[in-house]
Amino acid sequence: MLQTREFSPLTDDLITQIKGIVGAENCSTAQAQRELHSKDQSMFPPALPDVVVWVESTEQVSDILKLANTHRIPVTPWGVGTSLEGNPMAIHGGILMSFQKMADVVAVHADDFQVTVQPGIGYKDLNEALARHGLFFPPDPGANATIGGMIANNAAGIRTVKYGATRDNVLSLQVVLADGRILQMGSRSVKQSSGYDLVHLIIGSEGTLGIVTEATLKLAPIAEHKIAVQAVFETVAQAVETVVAVRGSGLDPVALEFIDTHMARMMNSSPQVDLAERPQLFMEFHATHEDALNQTIDFITEICSEIGATKLHATADTKERANLWYARHHAFESFQRTHPGKRAYLNDVAVPISVYPELIAFIHNLRETGPLPAYMLGHAGDGNIHVIFPFGDDEEYKQASDMNAQVVEKAISIGGTATGEHGVGIGKSRFMATEHGEALDVMWAIKQTLDPNGILNPGKIFRD
Amino acid sequence: MLQTREFSPLTDDLITQIKGIVGAENCSTAQAQRELHSKDQSMFPPALPDVVVWVESTEQVSDILKLANTHRIPVTPWGVGTSLEGNPMAIHGGILMSFQKMADVVAVHADDFQVTVQPGIGYKDLNEALARHGLFFPPDPGANATIGGMIANNAAGIRTVKYGATRDNVLSLQVVLADGRILQMGSRSVKQSSGYDLVHLIIGSEGTLGIVTEATLKLAPIAEHKIAVQAVFETVAQAVETVVAVRGSGLDPVALEFIDTHMARMMNSSPQVDLAERPQLFMEFHATHEDALNQTIDFITEICSEIGATKLHATADTKERANLWYARHHAFESFQRTHPGKRAYLNDVAVPISVYPELIAFIHNLRETGPLPAYMLGHAGDGNIHVIFPFGDDEEYKQASDMNAQVVEKAISIGGTATGEHGVGIGKSRFMATEHGEALDVMWAIKQTLDPNGILNPGKIFRD
Repeated sequence: MLQTREFSPLTDDLITQIKGIVGAENCSTAQAQRELHSKDQSMFPPALPDVVVWVESTEQVSDILKLANTHRIPVTPWGVGTSLEGNPMAIHGGILMSFQKMADVVAVHADDFQVTVQPGIGYKDLNEALARHGLFFPPDPGANATIGGMIANNAAGIRTVKYGATRDNVLSLQVVLADGRILQMGSRSVKQSSGYDLVHLIIGSEGTLGIVTEATLKLAPIAEHKIAVQAVFETVAQAVETVVAVRGSGLDPVALEFIDTHMARMMNSSPQVDLAERPQLFMEFHATHEDALNQTIDFITEICSEIGATKLHATADTKERANLWYARHHAFESFQRTHPGKRAYLNDVAVPISVYPELIAFIHNLRETGPLPAYMLGHAGDGNIHVIFPFGDDEEYKQASDMNAQVVEKAISIGGTATGEHGVGIGKSRFMATEHGEALDVMWAIKQTLDPNGILNPGKIFRD
Repeated sequence: MLQTREFSPLTDDLITQIKGIVGAENCSTAQAQRELHSKDQSMFPPALPDVVVWVESTEQVSDILKLANTHRIPVTPWGVGTSLEGNPMAIHGGILMSFQKMADVVAVHADDFQVTVQPGIGYKDLNEALARHGLFFPPDPGANATIGGMIANNAAGIRTVKYGATRDNVLSLQVVLADGRILQMGSRSVKQSSGYDLVHLIIGSEGTLGIVTEATLKLAPIAEHKIAVQAVFETVAQAVETVVAVRGSGLDPVALEFIDTHMARMMNSSPQVDLAERPQLFMEFHATHEDALNQTIDFITEICSEIGATKLHATADTKERANLWYARHHAFESFQRTHPGKRAYLNDVAVPISVYPELIAFIHNLRETGPLPAYMLGHAGDGNIHVIFPFGDDEEYKQASDMNAQVVEKAISIGGTATGEHGVGIGKSRFMATEHGEALDVMWAIKQTLDPNGILNPGKIFRD
């Protein structure tokens, strides 16, 4: 599946027309701005857009797209650049469309546990604004990603095991198509069985089918009572057995994170962190009543002990809980400390939980025999694992890329996917044919139907 | 959005070719079989297919579709005929494709809380087979619908408030396209962010984009401890206020059903049923520990009493619980008893919960001023309501259809949808343009891309 396209250069006349749409102050060809928007947090080399455009309304997005579609100029939407697979990088140049100035909360529908927002708002900022309503938007990819970016990538994170990914928490979208048509998809009704599910077609399409300009999201009530649990095991198999047991217990964990021995050792490079250097699980549980929490602690203690946890620490204390999660949230800082001057090639695959031990064993073996170190941490409750390969020069980059490919191919071969939550972007497009077979042709047919000139975020999902 | 197509008649030669594919015993043009497959449980007049074909494998489905696509013969998939909007009725004749003989459990993945099935299996039969694993497939539309039909319609039901609709419980699909291509969509990984979400494009597409031949479903652990709660109120407003309060409490109800005064009165026609004839809620909660249930009872009692429940009954007793749900599950039998000789025109709309009182008040007023009685029961936790209009002759059918249209248009006008869980089928296609605007054009463009000859379940979703 190769994309073919012919793009036109951005002429001075077109720049003038763009300025006419968004205002001169919202259109920049300055080198500094282009560089600032040339790269996300992935491991790929920067790509300069020709122009950075800050849109301020859906109508502006529509007008820019009409112009770009007529003249065959690539348009790449940009949230805040926290994505990890090059998803918002303008690798074919053209227009980088920033949503920094479309970052409002449009309406809080507290009784409906819903909020309508513009795509440029960060989810952490959104959750801060929602706190006084006792509500929050559950998906939490980590860095303060924008809602637009999260929708584009179907971002997930630590709380997905209970609350689902972004895909599970969006009710309706306003979307601008490549030809400038403005569509409403879905509705604020939580139950919908009315025609094709365009909302879910757009979620995870990485800006290649249309550009989201407004979204209504599902919210959840903030839990009053929380406990964090750390359980350390002798073997990875025991840790994963515990994951399955907890998932089957009905305990409904909010987080169920796996950390391997090497990762724990790396995390210990933080002065505040003192983890056992063994395979371990970090868990979190919420409840409406304090008594329920105590029962949960009893139950989880029973499960972990039976499987052979060598250390178990459960706490409802807010400070202790924060300390435990500190290590997880600062994993990438401990990477910098352990491998100064190196960068992280970050892998993201997911498999059915029953073959998680097989995947972990494969990665373990790859580390033992491969040219680079490898660190594992993952959302085990979802069968999702991230492997971090440190690289310095081009040779190590290639080695990391090769090791990444081996992990991806293993995951696909045992019923998993090339990407659980980072999206396809640049890095995973080479695995799409293997994973999807002829279904990739159908994806491409839909792409051609909605964006016949291929102007929307070219070079992503489908191979160039 | 009008469908245009030219279909060809089913010649003797084509029937011979069909028999060559599925065997003579799996192909019938007998009047009795055609009549048996001419109508679902909806209020629409029967439509005779030209031939009933029982497929036994994905390859047979593919071969039949290749033949039908080449010769432009309509193909309408059929589960067991429990749908409520004419969704599986062959209104353009042609081939009625029954999945009665593709009803196997392919594989139980107990550790993954997943099962892979053929589409012809009934969800109640599936859940019986899964019970020994302590697992179940949560969506429960009521009648023993097939999994294929549930996927086609995105069926939901009573437990959706906790577990989601069918849409939320499917991981991967095998789908045969109109041209016979056999595709795999999605994977068994619960986390997927790999390309376009074709699985959700197919779910709810009512067999108009492709035919599902295998599905991997998410399962949930069967809860050990359950309570049922009945709460009676003076006013509908109080009942709905309670719905919002329960949803915000974090109590995570499994069911949250609303029954209006007239419906309660009708249900009382069953000898076993003795309901207060007031607006009321039926609720169910599950827990892993018995103590947790007692806390839930205390909490729900507090909420309902504060809002002014005049009667409150909470029970963990299995028999009492079954008695309570008996009334709900036998609603349609009580209809037959109350309106002998009449049929039910069944409405299905859903709105954001905050405007649920407005919708209920509208329906109440419609009943007071309209020509026909109207009964309300609904999945209040989801903002979903069903209104039942009894009709006898053509005149009353037209009146019921008009009253239905008024409810649908009201729901759409306040941010809701024409159908929460029954699908579009025949009856709701006339509201699609109002609800979706230009997004309907995009649905149509996708339909044309995947089924250019329009052979798949013609006359559904899009207007003839």
